[in-house]
Amino acid sequence: MRNDPLARLRRAAEARHAAGLRRTRRSRGPDHDGLLDLASNDYLGLARDPRVTGAAAEAARVWGAGSTGSRLVTGSTRLHAELEERLAAFAGSPDALVFSSGYLANLAAVAALGGRDALVVSDAGNHASIVDACRLSRSRVVVTPHRDVEAVEAALAGRPEEAALVVTDAVFSVDGDLAPLAALHDVAVRHGALLVVDEAHSLGVVGEGGRGAVAAAGLSASPYVVRTVTLSKSLGSQGGAVLGGPEVVQTLLDTGRSFIFDTGLAPACAGSALAALGIIESEPDLPARARDHAVKLAAYCAEIGLESNDPAAAVVPVFLGPPERALDAAARCADHGARVGCFRPPSVPPGRSCLRLTSRADLGPGDLEVIQRALRAVAEMGARP
Amino acid sequence: MRNDPLARLRRAAEARHAAGLRRTRRSRGPDHDGLLDLASNDYLGLARDPRVTGAAAEAARVWGAGSTGSRLVTGSTRLHAELEERLAAFAGSPDALVFSSGYLANLAAVAALGGRDALVVSDAGNHASIVDACRLSRSRVVVTPHRDVEAVEAALAGRPEEAALVVTDAVFSVDGDLAPLAALHDVAVRHGALLVVDEAHSLGVVGEGGRGAVAAAGLSASPYVVRTVTLSKSLGSQGGAVLGGPEVVQTLLDTGRSFIFDTGLAPACAGSALAALGIIESEPDLPARARDHAVKLAAYCAEIGLESNDPAAAVVPVFLGPPERALDAAARCADHGARVGCFRPPSVPPGRSCLRLTSRADLGPGDLEVIQRALRAVAEMGARP
Ligand SMILES: Cc1ncc(COP(=O)(O)O)c(C=O)c1O
Ligand SMILES: Cc1ncc(COP(=O)(O)O)c(C=O)c1O
Repeated sequence: MRNDPLARLRRAAEARHAAGLRRTRRSRGPDHDGLLDLASNDYLGLARDPRVTGAAAEAARVWGAGSTGSRLVTGSTRLHAELEERLAAFAGSPDALVFSSGYLANLAAVAALGGRDALVVSDAGNHASIVDACRLSRSRVVVTPHRDVEAVEAALAGRPEEAALVVTDAVFSVDGDLAPLAALHDVAVRHGALLVVDEAHSLGVVGEGGRGAVAAAGLSASPYVVRTVTLSKSLGSQGGAVLGGPEVVQTLLDTGRSFIFDTGLAPACAGSALAALGIIESEPDLPARARDHAVKLAAYCAEIGLESNDPAAAVVPVFLGPPERALDAAARCADHGARVGCFRPPSVPPGRSCLRLTSRADLGPGDLEVIQRALRAVAEMGARP
Repeated sequence: MRNDPLARLRRAAEARHAAGLRRTRRSRGPDHDGLLDLASNDYLGLARDPRVTGAAAEAARVWGAGSTGSRLVTGSTRLHAELEERLAAFAGSPDALVFSSGYLANLAAVAALGGRDALVVSDAGNHASIVDACRLSRSRVVVTPHRDVEAVEAALAGRPEEAALVVTDAVFSVDGDLAPLAALHDVAVRHGALLVVDEAHSLGVVGEGGRGAVAAAGLSASPYVVRTVTLSKSLGSQGGAVLGGPEVVQTLLDTGRSFIFDTGLAPACAGSALAALGIIESEPDLPARARDHAVKLAAYCAEIGLESNDPAAAVVPVFLGPPERALDAAARCADHGARVGCFRPPSVPPGRSCLRLTSRADLGPGDLEVIQRALRAVAEMGARP
């Protein structure tokens, strides 16, 4: 017999442990265990809104706990159809196709629209699901430096492939900055490429009424823009969608592997996402509140000497360097009553471990004081040990 | 400007259309529009059981409509922890890790346990999510003929890589047949490989009390077996899980990209899966009822000259050849009151378009008559046109 295959896993786990890269599951209570939540992606505070949870409950009762099959077999209910219509209308897109997660929506969008005959140009800061999607596309992939429109243009101009996609997060998930969408669109159209934009962190947060970064850039009507969204952040639910025109939707219906071969979204999730959309439409100032709080948080970081970013949406990173330092800072925040995200490789590049604070529309003045105390404690950790 | 990128999509769509491979969304009502459902994967009829939907509703009310973040940030609630414990106990596994879908569970299991230093040996009939997982693993992949243990052994024996995985569906999703798990395990262990088994169509259906095909083969206690399951079929919900020992779970926690970078499963889905598990435990004859009905359906097919398979679980294919013929047959079934699955390439190999009938534990005698009438109508379609 050869070596024990579990020994290989154990060795790798020990190496990760030694490098400060071990992860653990910690399960929380319904109320985040008394800590102020600055770690979730529930940007509008809708995940626990009774209108949203009530809609989840009602949808489960009427439609069942699961959708029971692939969207192409038994997994498409009229509730899914309604959600697709409402998402498309909200974002000003001709159509929408709902998936069981944003992750699988990205896999399908890039893999089905790409292919061996296409070049895919992907920003170095793109989300893991886009990176995986690039690998699945079988396309040649050029990774361009973060937010570098010239590099994108050079890749498109020099390609031998007829077809091309440019893929980018709208708001980058850890850095919280915005992609140069108008410039990317201009370059994509000039070079016969589609622009695929992941609105995971911008839907419900960026643009008028939270209609997203593509809408804010005036690009909703472009037939060359494909948007992917998730229902799991500002909509407080679970699931994802691809928004686009008829050619795009038909391509995904016929060839999107993670659409065809995955069980449709659970009715409870479709129902709660619909309710959340309704709330955003009826309370159009919610998105601006989430953004304003983020700007305040970033300004406070700058004031006390912590490295952050200009937040385009609700994501505020605090860069700290080595993973141990980020872990330490997160523990200090918890000591001061705030639950924050702590990001280490492979979630971020080596040397860029950070806290990730997320603002919410429903943070009050007392909450902001809690955060500021926690951030002061982080600033007082001093220089790298 | 280069060619319109949408023209490429249109051309490809027209080619698929001409080949009978166009797909459409058709959305159903809560009751399958009056048709008898023989197409869903709701094998135990639990998706609409009020105990299951009630648990979904209750979980949404208590825990929120979404889990609000990655399982490693805010997306792990005590409900997720309970589900992991209960799944592991039910299947006789040391631990379980819950994902937002079975698709993403497969991607993580194979990609994280594989790697550039590993060989992955994958059955030619494996599910699309496993095929995608192989691509993401960056491993050398050998695809072996369907259920061919010798070919698996040859691939393992001849490999230069130290590490290896053997990956297989337990029950194949369209053919409905069973993998030779005991023989595969024997070969894997002798050659220092892990055996990854996808129990999507066997959990809740195969083995004593529905504990699955690994349990039925007496392999639950093997540390070299990793199981993936979905919560979306016999458990009537949505989600997936990887079952395995501590080395496997730690590897996924630290490096499973579709675990780390995906929002945790919605509480409603975790709650309904838990309730469904409880029902299976308290009604241990449900799985056998689903299997018995499948055996009856396959026997009837044989009787009237339709090509089927020996069903190992609840999946009964009816092979028809060209895609148009399968579409025709599905339409005839609908005319006779039965909703059946219709599978065409790329879901099945070219020339193997088929109906896919699924049996359920809760089919009554009248239901079986409806199916038999529908199958007779298919048999009367005569030879290929
Ligand atoms: C930018 C981005 N895209 C996609 C996803 C995946 O969405 P989901 O969690 O709904 O699968 C996430 C986060 O989870 C994300 O941050
Ligand atoms: C064999 C197999 N594995 C995995 C999956 C994916 O599971 P899920 O639909 O929960 O993503 C499916 C079907 O959907 C399947 O048939």
